[in-house]
Amino acid sequence: MPNKVSKSKKSGFLISFEGSEGAGKTTQISRLATHLEDIGYEIEVVREPGGTDIGEEIRHILQHSNNNGNMFPATELLLFAASRAQLVREKIIPAINKGFVVLCDRFLDSTTVYQGVAREIAEDPVNVINTFAVGDIIPDLTIVMDVPAETGLERIRHRATSVPDRMERENIEFYQAVREGYIVLAKSMPERFAVFDGTKERREIEQDIWDVVSKRFHIGY
Amino acid sequence: MPNKVSKSKKSGFLISFEGSEGAGKTTQISRLATHLEDIGYEIEVVREPGGTDIGEEIRHILQHSNNNGNMFPATELLLFAASRAQLVREKIIPAINKGFVVLCDRFLDSTTVYQGVAREIAEDPVNVINTFAVGDIIPDLTIVMDVPAETGLERIRHRATSVPDRMERENIEFYQAVREGYIVLAKSMPERFAVFDGTKERREIEQDIWDVVSKRFHIGY
Repeated sequence: MPNKVSKSKKSGFLISFEGSEGAGKTTQISRLATHLEDIGYEIEVVREPGGTDIGEEIRHILQHSNNNGNMFPATELLLFAASRAQLVREKIIPAINKGFVVLCDRFLDSTTVYQGVAREIAEDPVNVINTFAVGDIIPDLTIVMDVPAETGLERIRHRATSVPDRMERENIEFYQAVREGYIVLAKSMPERFAVFDGTKERREIEQDIWDVVSKRFHIGY
Repeated sequence: MPNKVSKSKKSGFLISFEGSEGAGKTTQISRLATHLEDIGYEIEVVREPGGTDIGEEIRHILQHSNNNGNMFPATELLLFAASRAQLVREKIIPAINKGFVVLCDRFLDSTTVYQGVAREIAEDPVNVINTFAVGDIIPDLTIVMDVPAETGLERIRHRATSVPDRMERENIEFYQAVREGYIVLAKSMPERFAVFDGTKERREIEQDIWDVVSKRFHIGY
């Protein structure tokens, strides 16, 4: 079956980072990658949408298409899923099979929360499309960076980039729905999710994440 | 429900054209459009993938991405579906609701046949994703242009364009599977499908199609 998607053996592992824009994901991914590399792990950091040549072209459509004010939620969901399908097969599975730790800046839970909860697309097709895109490549651990909607928005406004992209232009109610969506999802799968307070000091969060990761993957235990 | 997709009233109608590359779809769409316009119908001709600004960007990725030798079947299916989701909502529904006849160069059956049958992706996710993309916008009539795989390939090789796109580079077995896929599909839904012999003389096919269309839509009856 050409669409059979699975790991040949589970040597590496996959950690996804989720949360609103401005929650601090990128910073913490970078810090965790450094910690893991310091103790000898090989790391692949990928982002969504994007992470492959095809995925970066899809990212461009999602974020900067001329016509994107007119993009329908169904189109958006399918584009995210297409980018993810390519990323899983081209990058994530080969990396895991080589024993790498893959750190993913957003993964399937972003679709569940952004398109499912915040855009109110029905749960059944969202789940089928998610499963179709990722096969059995579910994160071993999902780290949610949790900040109040206002904090996320404020941080985004202070970013150096001049033109906000489509997601960044959403309103406070959308950010609020996203935040609540992640909390509900995390509570429904406590064995996979860990939620961190993104308003804490950066080094403190870094330590909190390291405590959870090192324990979960038996690093130094 | 943001993803509720349906016609507000059924004034116009939708005719899709399907078949292998080189089967003669474009020519016959143009001829049918002329006939319908001549008797007073307003026509919208759209193509897939593409037909909208966002869809044309997706078409570019599908056909000419630098990395496209590496595109996985799941990615391909989701990109086609994304283009279709946008086309249905931005163009087809508004046109039908204005009473136009929409002629579509490929539609959901292309996914069933190309990604489902020829690329062997499982039927269930293909059907769910198709339904998600089109809602209840199913063609009133689907015209299949049927030619032997060799004929389709030969016609493509004689086209003026210098660089064949990704689909055009597929081998004869793929074309054969596509042809058979359409025949099986048409037999399973005889009320929607009409199959035409694409090896006949162009004007003869034009007349055959007109006979079916005028009868089906009670034109001149």
